[in-house]
Amino acid sequence: MFKRLCSAKDALELLLDRCAPLEHTELLPLAEAVGRVLCGDLVSSVDLPSFNRAAMDGFAVRAAETRGASPSAPVYLQRFLPLRTGMAVPDGFDAVVMLEDSALRGSILEVTAPVHPFRNVARIGEDISMGDVVFKEGHRLRPPDIALLAALGQEMAEVFARPRVAIIPTGSELVVPGSRALRPGEAYESNGLMAQLYVERWGGLPLKQKTVQDDPGLIRDALESKIDADMIVIIGGTSVGEKDYVPRVLADAGQLLVHGIRVQPGKPTALGAVGRTPVICLPGYPVAALCGLYLFVRPALKKLAHLGDDMPMTHACLSGKIASRPGYLSIVRVALKGKEAEPIMTSGAGILSSVARADGFVIVPEEREGMEAGEMVEVTLIE
Amino acid sequence: MFKRLCSAKDALELLLDRCAPLEHTELLPLAEAVGRVLCGDLVSSVDLPSFNRAAMDGFAVRAAETRGASPSAPVYLQRFLPLRTGMAVPDGFDAVVMLEDSALRGSILEVTAPVHPFRNVARIGEDISMGDVVFKEGHRLRPPDIALLAALGQEMAEVFARPRVAIIPTGSELVVPGSRALRPGEAYESNGLMAQLYVERWGGLPLKQKTVQDDPGLIRDALESKIDADMIVIIGGTSVGEKDYVPRVLADAGQLLVHGIRVQPGKPTALGAVGRTPVICLPGYPVAALCGLYLFVRPALKKLAHLGDDMPMTHACLSGKIASRPGYLSIVRVALKGKEAEPIMTSGAGILSSVARADGFVIVPEEREGMEAGEMVEVTLIE
Repeated sequence: MFKRLCSAKDALELLLDRCAPLEHTELLPLAEAVGRVLCGDLVSSVDLPSFNRAAMDGFAVRAAETRGASPSAPVYLQRFLPLRTGMAVPDGFDAVVMLEDSALRGSILEVTAPVHPFRNVARIGEDISMGDVVFKEGHRLRPPDIALLAALGQEMAEVFARPRVAIIPTGSELVVPGSRALRPGEAYESNGLMAQLYVERWGGLPLKQKTVQDDPGLIRDALESKIDADMIVIIGGTSVGEKDYVPRVLADAGQLLVHGIRVQPGKPTALGAVGRTPVICLPGYPVAALCGLYLFVRPALKKLAHLGDDMPMTHACLSGKIASRPGYLSIVRVALKGKEAEPIMTSGAGILSSVARADGFVIVPEEREGMEAGEMVEVTLIE
Repeated sequence: MFKRLCSAKDALELLLDRCAPLEHTELLPLAEAVGRVLCGDLVSSVDLPSFNRAAMDGFAVRAAETRGASPSAPVYLQRFLPLRTGMAVPDGFDAVVMLEDSALRGSILEVTAPVHPFRNVARIGEDISMGDVVFKEGHRLRPPDIALLAALGQEMAEVFARPRVAIIPTGSELVVPGSRALRPGEAYESNGLMAQLYVERWGGLPLKQKTVQDDPGLIRDALESKIDADMIVIIGGTSVGEKDYVPRVLADAGQLLVHGIRVQPGKPTALGAVGRTPVICLPGYPVAALCGLYLFVRPALKKLAHLGDDMPMTHACLSGKIASRPGYLSIVRVALKGKEAEPIMTSGAGILSSVARADGFVIVPEEREGMEAGEMVEVTLIE
């Protein structure tokens, strides 16, 4: 039995208190900086454009000399210069007359419409001026942002480092997938791979470790050897059985903050720290592990990485009733069928095929006892 | 002037007609197959679990022998076996009694509650049976799906190849970012980098080419040298000026399907093919290039890659009026402030800083002339 069950909200708060956004940074070539977070305000050291630039194909002119021009009373210019879009408007000129408002008559330009100064000209620094803050610290660089940095002449960007997340699968029954046939009582290791792929997707650098046997000494060694990581995710052996050593080892080697959370599936989740490194202990049941990844690993990782919580969500209408245990945060898998969310009812946290069929989750709050068919719900999409 | 302007819808249809989903496939290690699309139904070759598995810590028993057990009238068993969750229930036993319903009395087990056959047992094949279709062809593999394949003992997954997309920046004025200071009339190449990053993000394999000068022969060589790609994106030189060679070269080297589209920004976009390879010609103005990437490159690439259109969207209330040109599909950059979308008004397609400030786009349909403040709109988020 768990000594004291913690609510999901309190558990997450305790965890996030231990997660300080990383301070170390790295300088990356632009193409590798996409998706990364700027570690300081980005100030332009140049003007964009860096010269007065023609915004149209046409002729550079002096605006004052076109005053009063019209089709019935054209103006004739001797000083002009043919330009294409993007070319520099040289000193001595201050506007561009469009092709349709002009005609070359030998060495003379006929202009049939007046232009104001800087008409059809992108002026120096009009888009971005030297000294402008282009992006603030904490901005996540998207492809057009990277393109903007390139347009400013940058080759590199300085960004926050990715959190290094050690992933430690535990369980004497685990076998490397495909290495050999299973004997009774064995299973292929799969949770560590799932955690690795999500950590990568959520902005971390996964450090996947070899599977550790159910042995307190080996588990302690594995935890302590990764004390320099920014976070440790250890999977399996988190319940209250005789061989569930992980929470006890964590309490000995560091600190056990939470063991047992009112969340379904995922009750045997534990949270703590080794030294200053936060540790998340996920249950070995794959669906419970998945829920723990979403509820705890994701927000902790996003905080370490200076990333906002951009959980992909949609709205849908429940096509069937959901049962849930009051007092527990319940995570119910659903399949989306058009605008409807169909609950996937299964007996337990071990049923992997239920996730294969699910498009997302509905989260039933602790104070509710299930949800009715026809209710509009928020669906968290499985990324 | 453009000879004939095409609507965005018709243009996209013509393009998609030329894009056949790829047929070639590749066999990848599981960890590399995440995000990829299965090229056939995935049928399980094993049962999961592969043995009758204890779903609880407790004792394996014969269910029939527990009949009638209660706290006041316990049953005493000689044949039983202590088991932990996940262990095999051996032949001769068919149920597991929970720890709380039992007690060891020397070599005898006291049972205080009856169990039905297979109570607390995950039966062979209960989750997935040999021969079950686990995922259908076309399924995109998410991390828990990869974990499921690992749990089935797979090491590899066979998926559709990623579309190879050649990206050809053109423009004699373009300079490699950071290589040297700009002279008047020059600009750093940035659109090609933006296209490269989006192609990668949208499931393609970008093949970024060197920048090509404004020279019909060189442009033709560049197009023809990439005829073996699955798609070509060529950027710049697509308008109707004297030096805008790209559409003319495309017409000569292959087929020009569309030149000039009623979309703002992005009117000087062209579409065609070289051999059987679809070609998208994007304008060199960066905001127009970005719009062309979203409107044309993205759906074409997703179709080639067997991927659904999963455009990230949100809803918001317009905080200001939007002006748009009737008859044109208008793409208006907006900044999200809570539940409000604030239009970013700028003079043109050349203003990169407007994208830096934008979180997404509002698309104003052709038949509308702007939108009013207070309207609820769909916002396409800039990924």
